[in-house]
Amino acid sequence: MTIEIIPDGTVTSPRGYTAGAISAGVKAQAPARLDLGILASDRACAASAVFTQSTVQGAPVVVSRRHLADRRAWGIVVNSGCANVCTGDQGIDDAIEMATLAAAKIGCDPHHLVVASTGVIGVMLPMDRIRAAVPKIELTADGGEPLSRAIMTTDTRPKRIAASFTYDGIRYTVGGIAKGSGMIHPDMATLFGFLTTDALVDTEAVDRLLRDAVRTTFNMISVDNDTSTSDTVTLFANGAAGGPAITPDHEAWPLLLGAVTVVSRHLAREIARDGEGASKLIEATITGAANDDEARIAARTVSASPLVKSAVYGNDPNWGRIMMAVGRSGARVDLSRIRVAIGDVVVCADGRPVEYDAAASKAALAGPDVVLSADLGVGQASATAWGCDLTEQYVKINAEYTT
Amino acid sequence: MTIEIIPDGTVTSPRGYTAGAISAGVKAQAPARLDLGILASDRACAASAVFTQSTVQGAPVVVSRRHLADRRAWGIVVNSGCANVCTGDQGIDDAIEMATLAAAKIGCDPHHLVVASTGVIGVMLPMDRIRAAVPKIELTADGGEPLSRAIMTTDTRPKRIAASFTYDGIRYTVGGIAKGSGMIHPDMATLFGFLTTDALVDTEAVDRLLRDAVRTTFNMISVDNDTSTSDTVTLFANGAAGGPAITPDHEAWPLLLGAVTVVSRHLAREIARDGEGASKLIEATITGAANDDEARIAARTVSASPLVKSAVYGNDPNWGRIMMAVGRSGARVDLSRIRVAIGDVVVCADGRPVEYDAAASKAALAGPDVVLSADLGVGQASATAWGCDLTEQYVKINAEYTT
Repeated sequence: MTIEIIPDGTVTSPRGYTAGAISAGVKAQAPARLDLGILASDRACAASAVFTQSTVQGAPVVVSRRHLADRRAWGIVVNSGCANVCTGDQGIDDAIEMATLAAAKIGCDPHHLVVASTGVIGVMLPMDRIRAAVPKIELTADGGEPLSRAIMTTDTRPKRIAASFTYDGIRYTVGGIAKGSGMIHPDMATLFGFLTTDALVDTEAVDRLLRDAVRTTFNMISVDNDTSTSDTVTLFANGAAGGPAITPDHEAWPLLLGAVTVVSRHLAREIARDGEGASKLIEATITGAANDDEARIAARTVSASPLVKSAVYGNDPNWGRIMMAVGRSGARVDLSRIRVAIGDVVVCADGRPVEYDAAASKAALAGPDVVLSADLGVGQASATAWGCDLTEQYVKINAEYTT
Repeated sequence: MTIEIIPDGTVTSPRGYTAGAISAGVKAQAPARLDLGILASDRACAASAVFTQSTVQGAPVVVSRRHLADRRAWGIVVNSGCANVCTGDQGIDDAIEMATLAAAKIGCDPHHLVVASTGVIGVMLPMDRIRAAVPKIELTADGGEPLSRAIMTTDTRPKRIAASFTYDGIRYTVGGIAKGSGMIHPDMATLFGFLTTDALVDTEAVDRLLRDAVRTTFNMISVDNDTSTSDTVTLFANGAAGGPAITPDHEAWPLLLGAVTVVSRHLAREIARDGEGASKLIEATITGAANDDEARIAARTVSASPLVKSAVYGNDPNWGRIMMAVGRSGARVDLSRIRVAIGDVVVCADGRPVEYDAAASKAALAGPDVVLSADLGVGQASATAWGCDLTEQYVKINAEYTT
């Protein structure tokens, strides 16, 4: 009963899913890049999604919320290059038309399509190009690879993975693709995560699976504290693997939740590592917090603090900034017990500086994965969050590509 | 009944205050810089302070809170170069000793001293040097000028101002100095604001004056979202101008509150403008919000968003980022009514893009003061916040000065 990672797996690795992508010309620049794609199941899925918490939400988010109200879906239609945000009633109509075009291709009800768009805000979708391109998309069982590239904006590489486990003679697979921070035009850093499984789960269980996994993975990353208007993470479950419905009280539930979490964590970490301008992944672990919420907010604040991020970039064992971030988060600390470490190097114990090996601390900061940890000394709760270092390149990317 | 600005005024402009500063050697580098100073009143003041909300608070904050519990104070002793944070019981003892040394100089009870320190975290104060230096500080009526320099870390210039008004034949003055983001060692961006007045106000009124002024000024700025362990803003009122106690129902109260607010706003804006690596001041104004809290959080989020800050640096009229920041703030918006402007150039109206003069929008971004505004279309509340652009220099300052 172990979960096996499939490093080159993707969103079409579970049975019963196909995908495809095309250069529709939403991204204006040459050479042409993939910018429109479809994920399709061969049957109706139990499906759930979590969306941006922003009060300014894109038209695709509005439409997808409606379409997923019954937690049933057949597929996803997605474009990059234009976010279809702040586009008024026309934007809503355009998102609905994208769903209608893709549904005709898949052969399902348009209300069973999720719509997702990422790119510039305040520009209308080029619907003529999308209308012409959707029928030409070829849906294949290995189409998860081109789809993972079609959702990229300034991501430097596609993010995809799958995991599988065997239970009672049946092999179950969970696959996923994701995109992170980037922009075509100088705009949004949208997070997309599209997850699939061939396990049979009901509409209640699919929502619980997704929320439990997202809570400790996608919701624990930050590139720059700025939340997109279009963030969308979905999980589809089509039951193509066969076997009984896996409910939360089923013996295989921990394996399925584990596989969804493994896939989500990998994709979330890769988004953080590929943050705009980033050269390193930051992993911030908080222990000894009073409760889960305080552990989570402290971990997120450390991993997202611009001063911590700058120090990591500079290989600077500047643990005062970790203390600052913990304090700013509002998490309660025992100042006479707090302990801080950079990698394995303890730099502060019982709330006071300790002699430490500066070379070892700098070495812990120099690698591609930098682990910062703090024990707050007040309780038993813990949490981990991921971010990336802050480099001059982040500023360049976001300042120099002017409209 | 008008408030007059005194551009070269300072914390010793009101009657009855003296100050002085010295190079004590807390800042290790050569050439020697002023790093220790005292502000003193010639009589007991009604005094109040607001401190960092961080759960990790420096020893000087802990001690100053205690000393101001009765809202009575005679002066402030302050050093730069070492924050005396995460220094355990010894740090508390050191902060108390600083107060004792300064009280001996002023001739008052040590419990009537405010203590403030800014600089590196996790390092003990060089108390031998401070012990030797305090008696040598010369307190003079024009000592506000050197004191404004002694509290600087990487501030590029001192911040000081005063304002005065005449009521019933008496001239009242409010003065202040402040420091903003910076570091000696690669560390904290501490905010200090020290305000004085010669008006007579009681201990309740002094607290109300300070809180009312801070709410719309110092609490509405951000350089990088990171909150120091040592932030301190104080207001002293010694009554040296003569006249009756000015209470909230007194006719002169609006003038006094106005003068305290004018001084606070100037100092707060100057801190934002002089943020680490900054080339421009950003002023973000929100109107049409549902309530004050939502207006304030939306204004602060726009002014502090790294994507907005980067766009301002790049003269990029990228209003999608303003929408993103408003949405992320959680403030309610009417997406069919929201309006966004860069300077005087409206770029989005009724939630949709409008044709605008790109050259005019870039011109509005190119000056030293960039005004961004959004009307959320849901209510009558408004707020203004200040920040600065994000430049490569911010990253360099915070990454390259390694320990």
